[in-house]
Amino acid sequence: MSRLDSFLRRLEAQRSCLDMAAALVGGLDGPVLELGLGNGRTYDHLRQLCPDREIFVCERRLAAHPDCIPPVEFLLLGDMRDTLPAARLRLEGRVALAHLDPGTGDIAASRALAVELAPLILPLLRRDAVLVSEPQIASPDLVALPLPGGVAEGRYHLYRRVNSRSSP
Amino acid sequence: MSRLDSFLRRLEAQRSCLDMAAALVGGLDGPVLELGLGNGRTYDHLRQLCPDREIFVCERRLAAHPDCIPPVEFLLLGDMRDTLPAARLRLEGRVALAHLDPGTGDIAASRALAVELAPLILPLLRRDAVLVSEPQIASPDLVALPLPGGVAEGRYHLYRRVNSRSSP
Repeated sequence: MSRLDSFLRRLEAQRSCLDMAAALVGGLDGPVLELGLGNGRTYDHLRQLCPDREIFVCERRLAAHPDCIPPVEFLLLGDMRDTLPAARLRLEGRVALAHLDPGTGDIAASRALAVELAPLILPLLRRDAVLVSEPQIASPDLVALPLPGGVAEGRYHLYRRVNSRSSP
Repeated sequence: MSRLDSFLRRLEAQRSCLDMAAALVGGLDGPVLELGLGNGRTYDHLRQLCPDREIFVCERRLAAHPDCIPPVEFLLLGDMRDTLPAARLRLEGRVALAHLDPGTGDIAASRALAVELAPLILPLLRRDAVLVSEPQIASPDLVALPLPGGVAEGRYHLYRRVNSRSSP
């Protein structure tokens, strides 16, 4: 499998998981949280999937396509280790769908980041929220959901928030 | 269609066209010419498709994944407007498969570049060579080939070199 093949499989898995997540939270109120904007492609996909939801976006430094830059009031600009705790005031226990994809291509670094960020993301999720994540995340408050057809085990991850101990 | 959708379609079209081109030149001797290395994903795909061919790669400045950097003797480093004319000594009338993808996402700029580069690429192609190109290229020495199934007209291009007036 070439790097082109594996890149395509990753993007296809990402899209399938986002599509499924949007369907799964169809009956839940609450905003979307995009953890990392990057070039803005998945943000653009999320806003087409969820045209009626607020979409908050974390990003360290804007480098997205000009068409894919969120309105400033939805932008959490800075290191997520700072911006996620600061967002609790607005978002605690409210987010219906969150998406984490560090997109570095470095699996070990992605997992390490996920370990660090999970405790900051979970309090923002409402009960039954869906978390879509490229790195695997282990937490007693998350239950892995079956992946969409065609997505190989471990390539991408879908979780349901099952516990609301950290919610208000 | 989101930017994620359209990016996926472009990459899928690219891969399908490269796969078909490699099959089409199966009976022709000659090296491959990758016009732009970028992150090295299509170079990696080409070397898996054509393990027995030399693959020459043009690039202005190396920024590829370390696993996808060609051996130095196959690297034409610099502006293609300089390196392609300089490569005539080694490659004139020899290349069996060439691939051009400026990958800027800017269609007008890609087409303008293709207009400028076509007269520099064509002399390197052998008769019946296949040129895979993201931008459309108009030349009396190129005949458009049917695209692989699933690739929308205009998304990517496949050409056969039909005339060898510029070959030795």
